Amino acid sequence: MRYDIAIIGTGPAGLEAAITAKVRNKNVLLIGSKRSSGKVEKAHAIKNYLGLPEVTGAGMQKAFLDHVAEMGIEITEDQITAVYAMGDYFALQAAKAGMYEASAVILATGVVAGKTYPGEEQYLGRGVSYCATCDGALYKGKPVAVIGASSKEEEEAEFLTEYASHVYYVPLYKEPVEIKKDNLTVVYEKPAEITGSMKAEKLKTDKNEYDVSCVFVLRDAVSPGQLVPGLETEGPHVRVKLDMSTNIPGCFAAGDIAGAPYQYIKSAGQGNVAALSAVSYLAAARKQNQ
Amino acid sequence: MRYDIAIIGTGPAGLEAAITAKVRNKNVLLIGSKRSSGKVEKAHAIKNYLGLPEVTGAGMQKAFLDHVAEMGIEITEDQITAVYAMGDYFALQAAKAGMYEASAVILATGVVAGKTYPGEEQYLGRGVSYCATCDGALYKGKPVAVIGASSKEEEEAEFLTEYASHVYYVPLYKEPVEIKKDNLTVVYEKPAEITGSMKAEKLKTDKNEYDVSCVFVLRDAVSPGQLVPGLETEGPHVRVKLDMSTNIPGCFAAGDIAGAPYQYIKSAGQGNVAALSAVSYLAAARKQNQ
Repeated sequence: MRYDIAIIGTGPAGLEAAITAKVRNKNVLLIGSKRSSGKVEKAHAIKNYLGLPEVTGAGMQKAFLDHVAEMGIEITEDQITAVYAMGDYFALQAAKAGMYEASAVILATGVVAGKTYPGEEQYLGRGVSYCATCDGALYKGKPVAVIGASSKEEEEAEFLTEYASHVYYVPLYKEPVEIKKDNLTVVYEKPAEITGSMKAEKLKTDKNEYDVSCVFVLRDAVSPGQLVPGLETEGPHVRVKLDMSTNIPGCFAAGDIAGAPYQYIKSAGQGNVAALSAVSYLAAARKQNQ
Repeated sequence: MRYDIAIIGTGPAGLEAAITAKVRNKNVLLIGSKRSSGKVEKAHAIKNYLGLPEVTGAGMQKAFLDHVAEMGIEITEDQITAVYAMGDYFALQAAKAGMYEASAVILATGVVAGKTYPGEEQYLGRGVSYCATCDGALYKGKPVAVIGASSKEEEEAEFLTEYASHVYYVPLYKEPVEIKKDNLTVVYEKPAEITGSMKAEKLKTDKNEYDVSCVFVLRDAVSPGQLVPGLETEGPHVRVKLDMSTNIPGCFAAGDIAGAPYQYIKSAGQGNVAALSAVSYLAAARKQNQ
């Protein structure tokens, strides 16, 4: 099945885009966490979301998710690892479902905090991966490293122990790591560099170096240029116009991924605009095909 | 006194700009109706303002105004008839207070529905006025016409009877007109054209023509190019960048005035961005003056 609009991300931008697209009777695929964004959930008092005075992060999360649920919109928990523009539709490569198709796409994945590691971009696809589910089986019987940005990546590391000869798990967070597997070592060190020759061969940290066949870098979001080949970016952001269009026809962006300021109401506003621009794009595309 | 930021308009864009500027400890002048926008108040169910599911226009109006009140922000009921960029500050000409000063300005006046009348722009300042309070005294003992877009303009027409020899009041709305003055005639006709030679001399309607010295055209908002001399516009909209800046440094725009789509959450989001851009502008200006 081909969706009208695929929306990637369930922060304020993605959720607002989904309800606006639904009001316009579009067939929507909304992909992301059922808990909305971690940023919303953990926020303290938010004073400037007009209409919700002095709301807590948890209160805002509830208001947003209730709204989406009331509209009958479901959130699909999957991870999109790549979006390919195929001409008149988009193919979305997904960790769980394999592949989705949609006529238009809205990127609302938030912004990647921090920089990439030296060697990361150089070896991407040659010993650097962003998706354990996608690429795990390629490293059967070989040692791998996993850099985990949050504790939800422990599940991915545990999954990799089924294939890899050994897994070095490098947590970027402070909570204790709860995985216990014979072939997994938790490395409490700071990742510094990925080195190799034709392919990645080592993960260097501030203290040691590890011989590995692949480094899985598992952040909450991948950078937009890596997610959508051909997308014009400016640093960590997608280059957008006022109507939230990007350089790829049918591909729109909203929220933190579309640039500062990083504010909830700004993200929601842009999600609304992106959805209506996607609706216009679909109408124009339909006319052209008639 | 000079305000940090003057915000013109109390729809979603203006209110959000005010609360964001207040969070950033700016000294804010918020000018407009204490009832927020008429458009909000009269709206039926609004389904896509994220966080306020299935809200009525009245419910949304209350949520917005409560939020602003909780933040200790006051709304000043006045009408800004012109904004002049003076270099390092703005002078705001006002119907009631005479003049305000502010270091930055955010235009959030909404969009003017409909077109100008033939002759309106030609005779502006020469027998066409947008402000009864400002120009009424100029037409002492002379006949004038008032085109009123909404019933709140009846008060202006009544005020003009104190100066003018006769007032022809042309309502553009359907509710019965409630003014009773000996020297006022309510004209239930459709305005067609303003004609004259050096100055305006006649208001022509679809049925008659009236000899007048001035035609007061009282809409809910004046067009942005008329409000702010030198401002770059596109049709009825102000030309803005993604950060809501205009071609005039220190002057920002948000909401319907900044272009379609005309949506509440989009307006609020842009109000937030405009306020933060104004805050950055003030910080940069302060540095330069040091």
